[in-house]
Amino acid sequence: MAESLAASFEAVRQRTEALCSPLNIEDYIPQAVEFASPPRWHLAHVTWFFETMILQKYQPDYQVFHEDFNFLFNSYYQSAGERAVRAQRGVMTRPTVDEVYQYRHYVDQHMIAFLSQPLTDEVSALVTLGLNHEQQHQELLLMDLKYVFSLNPLFPVYDADKNLVADHNTQQGWLSFGEDLYTIGYQGDGFCFDNEVSPHKVYLQDFEISKSLVTNGEYLEFIEAGGYQQFNHWLDEGWSWVQANEIRAPLYWHKIDGEWFYYTLAGLKKLDPESIVCHVSYYEANAYAAWKGCRLPTEFEWEAASGALDWGTRWECTSSPYQAYPGFCISEGAVGEYNGKFMINQMVLRGGASVTPAGHSRPTYRNFFHPQMRWQFSGIRLVK
Amino acid sequence: MAESLAASFEAVRQRTEALCSPLNIEDYIPQAVEFASPPRWHLAHVTWFFETMILQKYQPDYQVFHEDFNFLFNSYYQSAGERAVRAQRGVMTRPTVDEVYQYRHYVDQHMIAFLSQPLTDEVSALVTLGLNHEQQHQELLLMDLKYVFSLNPLFPVYDADKNLVADHNTQQGWLSFGEDLYTIGYQGDGFCFDNEVSPHKVYLQDFEISKSLVTNGEYLEFIEAGGYQQFNHWLDEGWSWVQANEIRAPLYWHKIDGEWFYYTLAGLKKLDPESIVCHVSYYEANAYAAWKGCRLPTEFEWEAASGALDWGTRWECTSSPYQAYPGFCISEGAVGEYNGKFMINQMVLRGGASVTPAGHSRPTYRNFFHPQMRWQFSGIRLVK
Amino acid sequence: MAESLAASFEAVRQRTEALCSPLNIEDYIPQAVEFASPPRWHLAHVTWFFETMILQKYQPDYQVFHEDFNFLFNSYYQSAGERAVRAQRGVMTRPTVDEVYQYRHYVDQHMIAFLSQPLTDEVSALVTLGLNHEQQHQELLLMDLKYVFSLNPLFPVYDADKNLVADHNTQQGWLSFGEDLYTIGYQGDGFCFDNEVSPHKVYLQDFEISKSLVTNGEYLEFIEAGGYQQFNHWLDEGWSWVQANEIRAPLYWHKIDGEWFYYTLAGLKKLDPESIVCHVSYYEANAYAAWKGCRLPTEFEWEAASGALDWGTRWECTSSPYQAYPGFCISEGAVGEYNGKFMINQMVLRGGASVTPAGHSRPTYRNFFHPQMRWQFSGIRLVK
Amino acid sequence: MAESLAASFEAVRQRTEALCSPLNIEDYIPQAVEFASPPRWHLAHVTWFFETMILQKYQPDYQVFHEDFNFLFNSYYQSAGERAVRAQRGVMTRPTVDEVYQYRHYVDQHMIAFLSQPLTDEVSALVTLGLNHEQQHQELLLMDLKYVFSLNPLFPVYDADKNLVADHNTQQGWLSFGEDLYTIGYQGDGFCFDNEVSPHKVYLQDFEISKSLVTNGEYLEFIEAGGYQQFNHWLDEGWSWVQANEIRAPLYWHKIDGEWFYYTLAGLKKLDPESIVCHVSYYEANAYAAWKGCRLPTEFEWEAASGALDWGTRWECTSSPYQAYPGFCISEGAVGEYNGKFMINQMVLRGGASVTPAGHSRPTYRNFFHPQMRWQFSGIRLVK
Repeated sequence: MAESLAASFEAVRQRTEALCSPLNIEDYIPQAVEFASPPRWHLAHVTWFFETMILQKYQPDYQVFHEDFNFLFNSYYQSAGERAVRAQRGVMTRPTVDEVYQYRHYVDQHMIAFLSQPLTDEVSALVTLGLNHEQQHQELLLMDLKYVFSLNPLFPVYDADKNLVADHNTQQGWLSFGEDLYTIGYQGDGFCFDNEVSPHKVYLQDFEISKSLVTNGEYLEFIEAGGYQQFNHWLDEGWSWVQANEIRAPLYWHKIDGEWFYYTLAGLKKLDPESIVCHVSYYEANAYAAWKGCRLPTEFEWEAASGALDWGTRWECTSSPYQAYPGFCISEGAVGEYNGKFMINQMVLRGGASVTPAGHSRPTYRNFFHPQMRWQFSGIRLVK
Repeated sequence: MAESLAASFEAVRQRTEALCSPLNIEDYIPQAVEFASPPRWHLAHVTWFFETMILQKYQPDYQVFHEDFNFLFNSYYQSAGERAVRAQRGVMTRPTVDEVYQYRHYVDQHMIAFLSQPLTDEVSALVTLGLNHEQQHQELLLMDLKYVFSLNPLFPVYDADKNLVADHNTQQGWLSFGEDLYTIGYQGDGFCFDNEVSPHKVYLQDFEISKSLVTNGEYLEFIEAGGYQQFNHWLDEGWSWVQANEIRAPLYWHKIDGEWFYYTLAGLKKLDPESIVCHVSYYEANAYAAWKGCRLPTEFEWEAASGALDWGTRWECTSSPYQAYPGFCISEGAVGEYNGKFMINQMVLRGGASVTPAGHSRPTYRNFFHPQMRWQFSGIRLVK
Repeated sequence: MAESLAASFEAVRQRTEALCSPLNIEDYIPQAVEFASPPRWHLAHVTWFFETMILQKYQPDYQVFHEDFNFLFNSYYQSAGERAVRAQRGVMTRPTVDEVYQYRHYVDQHMIAFLSQPLTDEVSALVTLGLNHEQQHQELLLMDLKYVFSLNPLFPVYDADKNLVADHNTQQGWLSFGEDLYTIGYQGDGFCFDNEVSPHKVYLQDFEISKSLVTNGEYLEFIEAGGYQQFNHWLDEGWSWVQANEIRAPLYWHKIDGEWFYYTLAGLKKLDPESIVCHVSYYEANAYAAWKGCRLPTEFEWEAASGALDWGTRWECTSSPYQAYPGFCISEGAVGEYNGKFMINQMVLRGGASVTPAGHSRPTYRNFFHPQMRWQFSGIRLVK
Repeated sequence: MAESLAASFEAVRQRTEALCSPLNIEDYIPQAVEFASPPRWHLAHVTWFFETMILQKYQPDYQVFHEDFNFLFNSYYQSAGERAVRAQRGVMTRPTVDEVYQYRHYVDQHMIAFLSQPLTDEVSALVTLGLNHEQQHQELLLMDLKYVFSLNPLFPVYDADKNLVADHNTQQGWLSFGEDLYTIGYQGDGFCFDNEVSPHKVYLQDFEISKSLVTNGEYLEFIEAGGYQQFNHWLDEGWSWVQANEIRAPLYWHKIDGEWFYYTLAGLKKLDPESIVCHVSYYEANAYAAWKGCRLPTEFEWEAASGALDWGTRWECTSSPYQAYPGFCISEGAVGEYNGKFMINQMVLRGGASVTPAGHSRPTYRNFFHPQMRWQFSGIRLVK
């Protein structure tokens, strides 16, 4: 068991560095907006998790790599003490990228030694949490990088082979589900986050759910029908958001000389109408569904239907606000700050995206974002 | 039926004016913050509803009182056309208060004549909606007036006899409810809002709900235990709100020379520790519950328990985000903008307050506010 | 001397009330923006000056009218203690308008008695300052009232006989002045503000100054030539201001169905091309002058030329930042806060407007506003 | 003449790169605040000036290095076309630092060839302007770098040998100047900026000017006497700035365990009381002077006295707003945007700082900043 944990540790840690291999030193630094972080920070922060939560607590005589790093690379764990202002992550040029890699390798060495010892279940669970945490940051790293690159008029290419939004539907039609009690929440014995338990019954009405996600071409019809100009499709705050930000299309779409393009991690591409629409906010997903005379699934409907769906190329907007499941209980200490304190004003997304690490998600996984956010790889599935 | 509707019409309309009887002309004008409106505007807006939604549509040859009033007194009904900027309601001094009363009386006259005719069910329903709408504004009028008055260093008295926050609990202890399917939503044949239907089954786990609401004295213990200084009780956005706004106590509380007072509609009063705490935000209610090792009820738990509760002195914070019930369908036209478009980023409150018009609320009634709001007469009931 | 001061006192005090005679109670209340104040506040604040600066200091046994009024009606005199937040002047409905008039009359009575006694020069000077202060607020009252009324879609009429922007030039052509030393600053023995002294020599180059002010028709040519769309006429911060606020014309101008109107204190009127342009910011005045290949006068040029100019219908924008004259010395106490502390980021305007009380201004008078402000009755005179 | 211009060109261009020699790639990227720019941008922008203003206009067949660079590296020259948003200079990671150096060397090569030809006076003047422009950016580069580094809790060292704020006074006492006409403005035949001409007479009153600049020790007395807590020393907007930003000391000062330190380009150092105070805003300089019963010099007094002063370690705050000299005329085209359009809301500083390139400043040189700015190396000289 400890051996396979060590193997997982090495695999996850190496994948993070592999994701950075196309980057120049310059690319590690900028923070374009407060909600995005620089690659340099992601690399260090996930390492900080292992150093602070594991090595400092459970490895006797462990010497911290640098005493200022707790301050610099803590994200939001108030229990772990003071931390640098979030908005200034892009201002820090020291420690350098090279020093951050040294930090990673120092912690890796100690972690690998640590993982060769017999571990308590509690510690194993914490290491597993750290690996899932790092996987989340792998996806955030790509999201944040795409956002920063998209602001550059040169539209930089991250990886020419990966057109990370060119996914097509494999199924069509609708699936029907009957009014019934369904059990929701993680019931396996592997890892899951604290927000996925405990399993509990939810009563659902009849619903039909689409086997396909909305495509760029379908979404374009909404745009061309004036969807962004008609208040009646929109939630009131969504309509204010559209007007205040002059939203006219999904994030990363550009109309150039009358033709639609979109920025992808493979550079600027002509819009593929068959590809699944990506980078829409909850407001847009909800407005599109209203315009179609449909609605979005609740997260419970989605979970109930998930076994019959082909999912995993987009995070799918649900109509469920992010709330605690019955019996949800916040853990003691810093780990307890992982999920519970964000349960307000955010909407649940289910499924997973092409940028989500393989094996990271599952049918009970609950992702969440504020309703105006759209730098995540989000898509739309309809229910009627 | 039409006769009793006419009687209701007169009663509701007169009560609005009675609520304004303690006011000076000056008091009708100011708008202290964007979310509050001046009495002058409330008086005209509820009248506008009857003129625009009923008389202009269903009374042939009706002459509008003043052609600019649709623009001036529309609140948020985009279907009803352009409207004055919400934030500038307090800037308007014309039409004068006297002219607004003339407008009321002109519309009243025409409405009374109109109501003496046989009405279709559709029109009756619309008039009833207008009366419930006016009752909502009766409560808003008191909320807004209290807010404006509270900013005046003279702490004006609205009505010396009404200490509108001095309500005490009549019951103590806990009620237990068993895991089961409960039916939620309005099932009667009287009026209800579109957000209360259709009735549907919800599966609830075991829960115990308090028979009493949290008192000022109990809440003071939270304050004195440092509740506003400890991040771990708070949702992340709640903690930011506390810090950004230097929140240290419920709205309207003042610590003067070491002693607690609160502003009421009867003026500044010494804090009554036995009285039920009022004017707390969802963030505060949630933090208080966490500090007590309890939680807030969901709106479904509240509704299931409501028959056994003594409710109606405070709007009770629930942990339920304001969302559509299964099968919720937005009506056509302006009336359809009543509820549905606000179903984002708001939390449901259940019950009713001492300032809520008698008979206006019911066990299925769903009130809603943003989680930072606290000028409503809100209180806290715990669940464990 | 004391007798004439008493007569002046009564005249000035009565004129303030006369200016309010067309108002309804409602009109006394609103504050549309932070820089404008309600009539109710102006009435009380100028009275506060006499109570606080004169009666409380120099009249033994004087009983203040109400102990909270110092807090409520102090404007910015930090030496005089705490004061209500400026932005909330429009929120206060108590003391009522009637009580404010009672306050005025109470203070008037005591002042008139006080002024019947022999006064020291120091006290006489202070009373005279108070009267000049009240005259400044008479003009502010009209400026602020016009601003609030202009936001009302009904375009209320303050006084149908006063079209307060319909002034025409009486002279044409240019005046030449030779390079020389000129003496600047007040040299008489009447009242002047501390910012007008001491007189001192200023060396001026040759200049020619226009005998007429720019008219609406001339300014319209600038608009129609695209003046608001061409960055090169504008100061950098002026250009940002134009773009951020979508400025397209002077304040109060409205283009309705292709025709220009402007709001005046006599209501909405068709633009008179012969009338002198009004309500332009320094940015606009400067851009207009640049577009004409001219420039604005310095305040010293204006003063040197003033004897030969017909001035007094508009405050004339000068290119001089508001700074201290050589030897300027801030007085002790609250009176010292009158002028000196505002000597940053503001531009001097010279002359006077049709809304300026008769006899209030003089050739050495220095008015001042921030460069983006335009609710004052400002106009443009060119120099080449 | 052309030969010495070529030599100057090479010297200035090399110095810019020498200033960057202590930097890591990471350090070239961040932009901490909108008013500061990344080293990478400075390096490219000064090069853009030569490419756009010289080579593209005067060198036939010149091929631009990259067609997007005009967009990316234009600063504020609206005449030169569209430009990237200023606030996002820190977001750009491409072109890379290496590519920016290639750009520099490409332009250098072409400029050196271009300068070997006979040049018109107009072109020579433009090249000289470009070199002075680059020298200004050399100083900005150090200012901006210091600002970014100062936000890093590690307090990075730019150059351990350069304690760039440890300058001491060499003279003490006061110099007297008599009331007289003085000639102000550049009268030599070398280079000067358009804002330094034309020379003109200014009449000054008697004044005495200090031979020394205010030291850290002297400024500390102001702090310890409560200078930052007493409104009466401050301009009104200065006092608001102090309170809104909780200003308690000059920029870069830190009180650690009761002892004062300051951040310098050589790292964090213990405060040297003998060293000349640095990084004060106009508001602070003005308040300090008021507290001492003195005032700041006008820029004309400073210039009149400059021959007798030992200046050049700090930019010296003057009480003069930045305005045009008599006869100031804005040049045609992009070069005309250099100075004139900033003549509003800024204050003149005279002299020069230890970070100012040798030979760049002169007695008539007019530097300028907004009154709240203090990342420039500014100091205080008193007048009485």
